[in-house]
Amino acid sequence: MKKHYYAYGEFLEDLKILVQKIDRPFDTILPIARGGLTMGHMLGEHYNIRKVYAINSIGYDDTTKLDKVWIFNVPDLSSAKSVLIVDDIVDSGDTLMEVLDTLHERFPQVTFFVASIFYKSSAKIKPDWYVKEATEWIDFFWSVDL
Amino acid sequence: MKKHYYAYGEFLEDLKILVQKIDRPFDTILPIARGGLTMGHMLGEHYNIRKVYAINSIGYDDTTKLDKVWIFNVPDLSSAKSVLIVDDIVDSGDTLMEVLDTLHERFPQVTFFVASIFYKSSAKIKPDWYVKEATEWIDFFWSVDL
Repeated sequence: MKKHYYAYGEFLEDLKILVQKIDRPFDTILPIARGGLTMGHMLGEHYNIRKVYAINSIGYDDTTKLDKVWIFNVPDLSSAKSVLIVDDIVDSGDTLMEVLDTLHERFPQVTFFVASIFYKSSAKIKPDWYVKEATEWIDFFWSVDL
Repeated sequence: MKKHYYAYGEFLEDLKILVQKIDRPFDTILPIARGGLTMGHMLGEHYNIRKVYAINSIGYDDTTKLDKVWIFNVPDLSSAKSVLIVDDIVDSGDTLMEVLDTLHERFPQVTFFVASIFYKSSAKIKPDWYVKEATEWIDFFWSVDL
């Protein structure tokens, strides 16, 4: 598959576009770790939101997709009203579906929104806001620079 | 106070130095949010560790230091053996002391190490590994770029 090196500069430009699109309020930012962590960090600073947590999933074994998505490190969102879930890419959508199922079940009173940088049109679920369609493999700078 | 703009490129070079210094094993990475999140993300990728969580603290009200550090969103580390706590800067050391107190109390069986990029020599506690002494106010790229 063709590879695209996704540099910090491109990420920053995409985040600027993303924050223009996000038009609903939220009090908590929940990155899906690891992919959403840097994004969650910068959005937290931008929106001046301190409640930036993490929820973890394993759906890939390096580059091989696993049969089942495992969700762990679910934070306590019982005092949240509206949570922005962020991830770098919505690919198959399996991770996001499992994360949303888990969170809706545990915190039925909370509203959840989803923002990602990339989205694949073949995914089972579409984020509320995204910046780009993914058409090739993306080497994110946080995965390859160090 | 003199300000230093801390760009992504400098951060990357510093992380390369930091990973050369870290010489103890760990199974979990725990960024102090928000400051440690981007660092935790990149170190998680580097060490191929999926267990990158978050612990949150509020010790500053924008740039004004508060009297008391508040620790929240404490993750379940009961199955961890050795945890690397990461933060961008150990300034007064108040946040780190409070985080360590909280974690030692809740998870007495876990070994904790601390790595930061910056460290102020006047801090009450020294990280196990750090890269640079902080002598001026630092504008981290994640705080000011977006």
